[in-house]
Amino acid sequence: MSDPTPPPVQHLDLGAFELAGGHVLPGARLAYRTVGELNDARDNAVLLPHMYSGTSEFMTAFIGEGRPLDPTRYFFVLPDQFGDGVSSSASTQPPPYDRGSFPAVAVSDDVRAQHRLVTEHLGIERLAMVSGWSMGGQQTLEWAVRFPDAVARAVPFAATLRNPDHCSVFCDLHMDALRSDPAFAGGSYARSADVALGLRRHAQAFALMGATSHMYREEAWRELGFTSRDGFVQGFLQAYFLPMDPNDLLTQAAKWKASDVAAVTGGDLDAALARVTAEVTDVAFTGDLFFPPEDVRADAERIPGARYEEIGSVWGHFTMFNLRESDTAQIDEVYARVLG
Amino acid sequence: MSDPTPPPVQHLDLGAFELAGGHVLPGARLAYRTVGELNDARDNAVLLPHMYSGTSEFMTAFIGEGRPLDPTRYFFVLPDQFGDGVSSSASTQPPPYDRGSFPAVAVSDDVRAQHRLVTEHLGIERLAMVSGWSMGGQQTLEWAVRFPDAVARAVPFAATLRNPDHCSVFCDLHMDALRSDPAFAGGSYARSADVALGLRRHAQAFALMGATSHMYREEAWRELGFTSRDGFVQGFLQAYFLPMDPNDLLTQAAKWKASDVAAVTGGDLDAALARVTAEVTDVAFTGDLFFPPEDVRADAERIPGARYEEIGSVWGHFTMFNLRESDTAQIDEVYARVLG
Repeated sequence: MSDPTPPPVQHLDLGAFELAGGHVLPGARLAYRTVGELNDARDNAVLLPHMYSGTSEFMTAFIGEGRPLDPTRYFFVLPDQFGDGVSSSASTQPPPYDRGSFPAVAVSDDVRAQHRLVTEHLGIERLAMVSGWSMGGQQTLEWAVRFPDAVARAVPFAATLRNPDHCSVFCDLHMDALRSDPAFAGGSYARSADVALGLRRHAQAFALMGATSHMYREEAWRELGFTSRDGFVQGFLQAYFLPMDPNDLLTQAAKWKASDVAAVTGGDLDAALARVTAEVTDVAFTGDLFFPPEDVRADAERIPGARYEEIGSVWGHFTMFNLRESDTAQIDEVYARVLG
Repeated sequence: MSDPTPPPVQHLDLGAFELAGGHVLPGARLAYRTVGELNDARDNAVLLPHMYSGTSEFMTAFIGEGRPLDPTRYFFVLPDQFGDGVSSSASTQPPPYDRGSFPAVAVSDDVRAQHRLVTEHLGIERLAMVSGWSMGGQQTLEWAVRFPDAVARAVPFAATLRNPDHCSVFCDLHMDALRSDPAFAGGSYARSADVALGLRRHAQAFALMGATSHMYREEAWRELGFTSRDGFVQGFLQAYFLPMDPNDLLTQAAKWKASDVAAVTGGDLDAALARVTAEVTDVAFTGDLFFPPEDVRADAERIPGARYEEIGSVWGHFTMFNLRESDTAQIDEVYARVLG
């Protein structure tokens, strides 16, 4: 952002919102931010959902005057996903759906809520683009399948149509890491900081899988100012995750693990993909241990008309954290091509 | 083995054995098995150290009449590494070095003890080959550097000269998984089965890193008779690790993490490698998440005269578990080339 102050958070009251899992969430709220202005034709809107552990603020890092995501040209809508602590979440919901008893949410729940925001509240029929990273990419793909008429372009980064099985093994591990802290107490801890041990274990799992062996071999963490590998794990990963709420992370992680765009067609993936009309650019990151390039490429070959691109970086899944200028530049190039 | 009964375990008393870390381990014992007969020239001995979590029995899987490792032709020595529960270990050592207070052991300690076994006890000056997988490969490389005159051929599978940094992040994670169980109690648990929760978490880490995303995508676990991914994790990984002793695993894991052949030359790796006279065949497994092929290849380019080979399998680091006949066949081919 050229303006370092993030735009303010707004809320849409969804009322009693029926979730895919069957629960009805009373007083559900969808938080979001906007950047730029909707034009008179209402055709310059871009939706940018965020990744696991992020909030609506994250994707503002790719918006800037003179950049492909230019706020003088586009109207950006940045939704908070359920469970991120800003939209309805375990940490914000009153009893009986609070804390460890917050119901399971699906990626499709986020997308259906966002669809209401975009169409009913903002009066936008068709988005010029939907794009996001990781869980933001899962939401992007879900949009393209579930609401094909509302998406002109879909640009998922580092995400797949269905969560890869190996990635589900990873989700099991990092979810269990949070729960392994005796202070977690089935999610009924008093303060999230009480579960610091679980949050640290969870951070270690991301130190292992978020970057690549190549990054550690090159000691690319030195570029971030760290002087040792352990310093990076503690000063970057633990520092990042420690302020978060374990129940909120678990809500998001369960969504991530269960993600599957074929839910809308009862599990028939080909039928789901036949619905897609958006121009899809499916982007993988070299060395990504969550969503390997071969899975993203296989998806791209299956989605009608989709293009496959791969961005090379030592950062693997973390490429979109903008830890190297060349990473951000390559992402901007994708956006420039798609929107150009 | 053509004979399904493994050869009996023997023991060499090492007396008070000084460890690289400074402790002197009283009454140290090195366990081992032998297969075949030492010839009159005493030049047909092959040493086969084993991997993390294994014992001397493991490498018998590659020995068989008519196979490259033929017991009618070679005399095989299969040592148990310290901490494997058969040689001196946390689970076998009397106080004050018992359980959580077992001292840190280095790969070089194993190799020095094995050198005494081979030279002083068995009267062998030079081994026709040293070969092993993973930590067995670390020991193989340590042999080639530390006792160059005693090694004609060195064939490490899936191991590196120094533990890769990323692999150390993995070691931190799976060691912490064992300690995360409140019943671990600093290593002073009464029975290893009390730490079942820690052993299960540790198994999950190996489910994530031991195989590959490719294996999960192909559901190659079906070939082992499992009907679900979770069934494989529980029935294969948990079943494998649950009977083990956490303190013993931690002794081995700390060795693995700290492994570095340059210790013998005060950290100077080039000086260490200049010592090597063995014919080295450095073998990587495609997709190995512990010791990636690019690291093994970089080692091979640095070791004087070494050859690099790569074995393709969906099983990644677990390729040497012989889960597919084609994996075993490729390993046998390496041995045939080296010994042929």
